[in-house]
Amino acid sequence: MILFRKFLIGSSLTLTGFFAGSLLERRRKESCKETLPGLFDAVYAATPVSVPDIASQKGVTSSRVSQIMKYGFPGFDQIRSFDDYVLSYDRRNRVAHWVFEHLTADLVKHNPDVDRAKCDFKPDDTIHPFFRSENSDYKHSGFDRGHLAAAGNHKSIQKHCEDTFFLSNMAPQVGSGFNRDAWNKLEKYVRKLTKKYINVYCCTGPLYLPRKENDGKTYVKYQVIGNNSVAVPTHFFKVVVCERSDGKLEMEAYVMPNQVINNETSLNMFQVPPETIERAAGLLFFSQVNRKALVSINGKSV
Amino acid sequence: MILFRKFLIGSSLTLTGFFAGSLLERRRKESCKETLPGLFDAVYAATPVSVPDIASQKGVTSSRVSQIMKYGFPGFDQIRSFDDYVLSYDRRNRVAHWVFEHLTADLVKHNPDVDRAKCDFKPDDTIHPFFRSENSDYKHSGFDRGHLAAAGNHKSIQKHCEDTFFLSNMAPQVGSGFNRDAWNKLEKYVRKLTKKYINVYCCTGPLYLPRKENDGKTYVKYQVIGNNSVAVPTHFFKVVVCERSDGKLEMEAYVMPNQVINNETSLNMFQVPPETIERAAGLLFFSQVNRKALVSINGKSV
Repeated sequence: MILFRKFLIGSSLTLTGFFAGSLLERRRKESCKETLPGLFDAVYAATPVSVPDIASQKGVTSSRVSQIMKYGFPGFDQIRSFDDYVLSYDRRNRVAHWVFEHLTADLVKHNPDVDRAKCDFKPDDTIHPFFRSENSDYKHSGFDRGHLAAAGNHKSIQKHCEDTFFLSNMAPQVGSGFNRDAWNKLEKYVRKLTKKYINVYCCTGPLYLPRKENDGKTYVKYQVIGNNSVAVPTHFFKVVVCERSDGKLEMEAYVMPNQVINNETSLNMFQVPPETIERAAGLLFFSQVNRKALVSINGKSV
Repeated sequence: MILFRKFLIGSSLTLTGFFAGSLLERRRKESCKETLPGLFDAVYAATPVSVPDIASQKGVTSSRVSQIMKYGFPGFDQIRSFDDYVLSYDRRNRVAHWVFEHLTADLVKHNPDVDRAKCDFKPDDTIHPFFRSENSDYKHSGFDRGHLAAAGNHKSIQKHCEDTFFLSNMAPQVGSGFNRDAWNKLEKYVRKLTKKYINVYCCTGPLYLPRKENDGKTYVKYQVIGNNSVAVPTHFFKVVVCERSDGKLEMEAYVMPNQVINNETSLNMFQVPPETIERAAGLLFFSQVNRKALVSINGKSV
C-alpha cells in the first residue's frame, strides 16, 4: 500500500478507469454484496466509497474526490471481453472505439463444423439501452453492418464466430466496393499473415477524420443513422503487429476511407504511419512495444 | 476472491477501466517496481500480467484476454482528479468528456487573497502530447478558451482557481454573446444555488449534436481548430443536483448552443430532460440517485 500511495503523490492525480477499479476491488473485499447488477453499474456503485489511503500531499484527498463524485461517475470506457476478442465501446457514437484480436494459424483455421450462416446479428444487451445500436438502425440506411473483428478470423469455434455478430462489433460500412471488397481484401490479407508469422495482433477501429471546407475552416463531419444515431465513420483503420519465429516484431498500419474503392488499388496504398492513426483516433497502439525496437513499419526498416 | 470470480462468471465480461485498475493494484502487491512513469502508462503496463483468478466458466479466461492484449490496451478514459474538481478527458476531441464539481456556499465564497489575474492558461502535461491542446490552438481561432469547471466556483484557495486554468478544462467557446454572456449567466446561476441548497453537484461538458441537412440525412458536424485539431462543441450542457436542507434532491439540466445567444433569453428556455443529454453525450448522470426519488426535475415535480 505504501507503494500505491507513493505512486499517487504528485502535483495532481491522473487517474484512469483504474481508480474505480481499485475502489471496486477494495469494496469487494470489504463487503458481501453478491447482487451487484453488473460490472458497469458496479463501477458507478464503487465511487462513493471513501478510500483514505489514496491521498496526495498536495491537498487532493480521496475523500474530496468521493465528495465531488458522490452520486456516481457519468462515464467510463466500457470494455467488453469476448471469448476471442476484446472491444472498447464508444457510447457517444454507438460504435466501438477499437477491437483487438490475436490471430494464429490454428485460431483462424476454418473448422467445418462452424457455420457462419447460423450467426445472427444481435444487439449487445450489456450496452445501456440509451447507447445500444439495434438492427433497425441499419435497416434501409444503405449501409452494411460491417464487422470490426472479422467473422472470418474466428471460425475455429461456433461461439467465437457468433460473438463477432454482436452489434457492438459492427459499424455502418459502405457495402459494395468497401465492406464486401477492399475492406474484405484487407481482412483476408491480415488473416493470411498467420501463415508467415507465429502471432498476429490486430487492432481495428473507426476514424472520424477532419476535412478542410471551402470556407477555409476544418470540420469533422459524419452521418448518423437510425433512431439511435449510430455514427458512420469516415474511415477505418487496422494496425497489426506480427511476431516472427525469431521473436522479432513487424508493424503495419492501414487507413481506408468508408467509400467505394477501386478494386485494383493495392493494399499498400492504404498504409500510413501508425502515429497518424493514433493522433486521429485518440489511441496509442502497442504501447508495450518500443517502436524503435520494431524490425519494420509498413515494410520499411525502423 | 471467490466473490470476485463469481461476479465475472457470465455470458461475457463487461469490463470497464476497472479491469486494468484491478490488475494494476495486484501488480502493485506483487512487484516492487517503483519507477512506473505515470499512472496512465502504468495502466498499459498492467495489461500483460496474467490473472488466473479472473476466469469465466464459458471459456473467457483472463489468460486469453492477456494474450490478446499482450502489447497494451490502445486506450482508456483518462480521469483527472484536481484539488476541487474531477475531469474525464476525450483524447479524440482534445476536450473533456465532462467535469464534475461539488459546490457549497463556503467553497464558492471569494477569498480576497485569491487573484484570478495571476492564473495562466496552461497545457496539461499529464495528457499525452498527441492529444494535448495548446494555447497556440486557440490563438487566432476566434474562440475563447472557455472554462468547463468555472474559475468563479473555485475562489476560496489560489491553487483551486489555478487548477481550473489547465487547457484540459477548456473548450473552444464563442466569446462575446456566449462564454462572456449567456454561459456566464448560467455559471453564476449555478453558483448562486449554493445560497439556497446545502450541496450543489454540477456536471458540465460539450455536446456534438446531429442535425438534419437538405439531403434528408442527419450529420454530426463540428469545427476543429489549431494544429492539434481541438473540437469546437456545437453545444454545452450542465446537469445539476441540489441537496436541500431536508436531504431531498432536485435536478436541473441545461443545454446551450455554442453561439451568440440573445442576452434577454431566460435560462429556463435552455432546460431539457436530462435523458436528452445522456443519450447525446453517451453519459449517465447521477446514476447513484434513483431519478424517481428526486423531488423535481427542471422545477417540475417528478
